[in-house]
Formats: sequence, structure tokens, C-alpha cells
Amino acid sequence: MKIKMNGQTEDIRAVWMEGKTVQMLEQRLLPHKVEIFTARTVDEVCYSIKEMVIRGAPSIGVCAAYGMALAAMSGDDIGQAAEKLKATRPTAYDLFHAIDIMQKAVGDGKDPVQSAEDYANSIAEKCRLIGVHGEPLIPDGGTVLTHCNAGALATLDFGTALAPMREAHNKGKKIFVFADETRPRLQGAALTSFELVQEGIPHAIIADNAAGHFMFRGEIDLCITGADRVTVIGDVANKIGTYEKAVVAHENGIPFYVAIPVSTVDFNLSSGKDIPIEERSQDEVLIINEKPIGPEGASARNPAFDVTPAKFITGFITEIGVLTPNELDKLRMTMGQ
Amino acid sequence: MKIKMNGQTEDIRAVWMEGKTVQMLEQRLLPHKVEIFTARTVDEVCYSIKEMVIRGAPSIGVCAAYGMALAAMSGDDIGQAAEKLKATRPTAYDLFHAIDIMQKAVGDGKDPVQSAEDYANSIAEKCRLIGVHGEPLIPDGGTVLTHCNAGALATLDFGTALAPMREAHNKGKKIFVFADETRPRLQGAALTSFELVQEGIPHAIIADNAAGHFMFRGEIDLCITGADRVTVIGDVANKIGTYEKAVVAHENGIPFYVAIPVSTVDFNLSSGKDIPIEERSQDEVLIINEKPIGPEGASARNPAFDVTPAKFITGFITEIGVLTPNELDKLRMTMGQ
Repeated sequence: MKIKMNGQTEDIRAVWMEGKTVQMLEQRLLPHKVEIFTARTVDEVCYSIKEMVIRGAPSIGVCAAYGMALAAMSGDDIGQAAEKLKATRPTAYDLFHAIDIMQKAVGDGKDPVQSAEDYANSIAEKCRLIGVHGEPLIPDGGTVLTHCNAGALATLDFGTALAPMREAHNKGKKIFVFADETRPRLQGAALTSFELVQEGIPHAIIADNAAGHFMFRGEIDLCITGADRVTVIGDVANKIGTYEKAVVAHENGIPFYVAIPVSTVDFNLSSGKDIPIEERSQDEVLIINEKPIGPEGASARNPAFDVTPAKFITGFITEIGVLTPNELDKLRMTMGQ
Repeated sequence: MKIKMNGQTEDIRAVWMEGKTVQMLEQRLLPHKVEIFTARTVDEVCYSIKEMVIRGAPSIGVCAAYGMALAAMSGDDIGQAAEKLKATRPTAYDLFHAIDIMQKAVGDGKDPVQSAEDYANSIAEKCRLIGVHGEPLIPDGGTVLTHCNAGALATLDFGTALAPMREAHNKGKKIFVFADETRPRLQGAALTSFELVQEGIPHAIIADNAAGHFMFRGEIDLCITGADRVTVIGDVANKIGTYEKAVVAHENGIPFYVAIPVSTVDFNLSSGKDIPIEERSQDEVLIINEKPIGPEGASARNPAFDVTPAKFITGFITEIGVLTPNELDKLRMTMGQ
């Protein structure tokens, strides 16, 4: 991704190795300040994951892989390093997967740095291909709506939902993006807008309430979001609000695409209704920029995700091409799962 | 409306007369603090309207009527008082209407205070009747979604959308309200939740994004909102986001009601697409509690209202009963307009 630093534009990833250090964008300072955080030890890498200097499952996985490489280069105990890194965040599948791959590679006597880079490159390549396959869906002069942040910050590079927009922009298409601010955590305003500013892609932040208005007025050509989990029949769990956007897009005949690597498909799950929805702290709704928005005594409900039934999804933009919800099922058969 | 002040609960309106003063809730301090603002002169009444101590077209109209009564009691020049009061806010129809009524009443030699009270009572009575007609639509044990604030603060008493909920609660029905926070200006979190806390009506503030999720999960029985303008075929202009909620309610078979006095119907307008939509300052989106939510260089679009086509509206709750969109047209014929 392009990032303006010290007066010039650099093409960097969310995290990378430089000599015996792991470098990453200090995401806690975004969108207001661009700074690089340097981890020189496994403990510092653990800190960066735990304290959310870096976030997003794919980015965290790569960061941990580099942490393992750092341990191997420094002659640390690999098993101990793996244990420490696995203890940083409880749920991200990528974290454990990346650490296991590195532990095996080091055990097999492979070069630790090269193994970590191979892992990182495989992650970035999937996103790049999502961009390549999704780009033709965006017409020249077109306007895209996106929700939340499925960008390069979270996925090492390119992003998932943002990859086709980057690719279209880089190919010289004149595109415009509406970025839902995405309450309660405002990832659209903070992170998606940050990435778009950095890339020089024209866009506007909108209140989540305004997306329907612009669809109704014919000002949006297509929608692209990411997903946290996709079932085998194509139901989509994603950031709260995705369902509303998809229903309203459907009502207005606007294509609604979900950009994901194939690994996001849960081949063991059919109906989206079976996906458990995390309810997070009330304070994410009730307090903004350290001040309460409601009266004393008010309470809130705060579901973090919602489920969008497959019938509202036009297609899935993946590293192997654009698939309809029906084709996900065929994919399972092809993959023999 | 019920308001807790100085340790006890009082039943007050948004504005009232007391001797030679006009008293009102200081709405600029809501939802965090309950205070009464006292205006002793026409100039102080003008200040209260201009500086938004009081807001909402019906409440402003009544406040101006009391200002005219104050002028008459004080022996001020009535024409001059009318001019000053009309110059406070540019667009609210109720303001000019109320001042004209009072100017005529004083000219006809009627008692100014009684005339102002008659006007205020006619406004409050309409809202009370909206509550009476809307209450049977809310089942005991039911959950209602509302958007923005169509409450007593804006309409002198009872509210429009909130009137049926107050009535149901007062009748002993166990109801629960989901209040959309209503970005960008957060009137749902600040004002609707404030009124519901005061009345003791159980409720939760939700991010606007979460409404669809709760509809999909079957946790919402009906939706009630207010409206800024309704066309003769039943298209509704209301706070941005209303359209999305109505479309998603329709998709889930959930009734969607709009609570309005008949005077909100514009009998000269047919299609809602002809209603001009105000775009307000970007900063309402970009800055919350004095801090930016996006990166430097970000811009925003900020439509304040949207249009919901009549096909998504189950009915209009008015002072003369619940009308379908089709019946609005008959109303015009009955009224000979």
C-alpha cells in the first residue's frame, strides 16, 4: 500500500522485516499520525500484537511469523517463542496457523527468514489476485460503496474489499468511493478513509444512515465489503450494518460483492443463522471520543457482526475468480472437503 | 412529559408561561443536565429560539406565541415583537403561523395569554391523540424501533413517534424500545433516550447499523418514526436513515408506521423524489465530541434527510386515526384542497 512518510510516498506492507527487526505501521496512531513501530525481540513482537499496534487477522499472522524468524535468528528457544506468540490474542486463526507453519519450517531446517517471507508473500498474493479479479467489476467513472475496513492495514497489503478499488485506480479508472463510517468503532472513517487518502482515491465518508439514500438516488454502482466468515451456501457474517446495506442494494438493483480469500469459507457451516454473533461492550456505542452521547442511565445493545443471507450477495471476489454463492458449494466438492 | 427535577418527577411541557415569564427546558444542556431557562422579555424569547435553547418546529411555534403574549402584557409594540420573533429562525413554518395567529388575536382584542395557551393546547392535543390512536398498534410485551427524535421536546408534549410508546407504557403495557442513535447528529442517543429514561420506559440505544440485525433476528415487532414532510401519495421525507430502516422492515415483514399531525402532509406534492434534500456541513460527520474521526484530508457527504416511498409505509398515525398511504389522498378530497 502507498503511505506518505517524511514528505515522500512509499509502497509498504502493514509489517515487514528489516535486518534483525520487525517493522510495522503503528496502527494505534491512525488515522491521525503515520509512525513506524520497531520490534527487536520476540517480547516486543508479542507486545505489538497484544496491544494492537498491529491488527487484522492476516497482518497479525505475518507479524507472528516474523517474530518466529526473529527468535530463530537470535538463537531463542523456538518452542518458547511459539508459546509466547500464541498467547497474545485468543481468537485469530491466522495467528496459530502462521506460528505452526514457522515452527515446522524451522524444525525442518529451512531458512527462517525466507520461510516467513514466503508465508507473507502468499498472503499478499491472494489479496493482489482479489484485486485483479475484482477490478473489471468497477466501471470507469463508477462509484463504489464499502463498509468497515477490509483494507491493506488488516491484510498485510492490498486489502480484500479495497484491493479491486486500488487496482481500478492504478489502472487509471476514475472511481469514487463512499466509505460508511461504520459505527460503533468507526473503522470506515478512521482506516478505510486513511488508506484511500494515502492512495489518492477520491472518496467521501458518510454516516451509515446515508448509504441507502445514495443508492436510492442512483449514485452508487456497486458495493464491495469484506467478510469475517462465509458459509458453504454463501451466507455472510461481517461487520454490523452489512446486512442493511445488502438488503437496500438488492432493493435498488445494485450488485453487492463480498471480497474474501477462499480460506474465509467455512465448509462445515451451512446456514448463517448458526453463526454466533458477538455482543461487545455497551461503551463502544455510548461513548465517543471519551464523552457520553446519551443521558445518565442509558444502556445500549452492541452486536459486532450481522448475517447477510446469500440471496443478497451477487458474488464473491476471491483469489481464484468471482464466484456466485452457488459456486462456493462446487468449490467444496472440487477441494474434496 | 415526565421530567425528574430536584429529586421529584414533574409533568411539564417543553415551554410554558409562568406569570410574566416564559419558561422552557434548556435543551442545549440535554441529555446531560436538566435546567430551566427563563425568558423575561421578547428579546430573551428571541434569544432562546435563535440560540436553540428550544428546538423542534411545534415547540418553537408555541414559544413564539408565548413571546407575543409577553409583549402584549408588557405593553410592547406588537408589530415590532412579531418582526423580531419572525427573524429568529428562517424555515420553520410553525413559527410564522403561531405569530400570525397571535397578532390577529391581539388585534381582535382577545386575551393574549389565553390565546397563546389555546394555541399551545391545540398543538399538545394533536400529539396526545396520535398517542391514543397509535397505542393499540403496540402489543403488550412488544419491542418498537424508532429513529431520530420525534418526541415531546420538539413537539411541546407527548411527541409524535414517541406518543404511542408513552401511551402504551402509561397503560401498563410492558414495552421495549430500540432507539437508533441517529448519526450524524445523534438525536436518538441524546434526546430520545433522554425522554425514555425520564419516562422510565425500558430501552437500548443502538448504532444505526444494528437495527437490521435485530429485525432479521425477530427482535423488533414494529417501527415508528416521525416525518418532516409527507406527500399526498404517502412518500415520506424524514431524518437520514429512515429509508434504510423502512426497506429492511419491509423485507422482514415488520410494520413501519409514521406518526404525524395531518398538517405535515403537503397536499401540493405527489412524488417524494421532488422533495429537495438539504446537505449539511461535512463537519457534522467528520467531527464528534470536538475530535476528528477521519484522517487529515478526508471529506464527507452529509444529506440530512432521505425519502421513503409510500410502498414501505404501513400506515400514518395521525390525530384523526391511523391512515394508509392511500387514505391520505382521500383526506385531501374530504378537506377540499
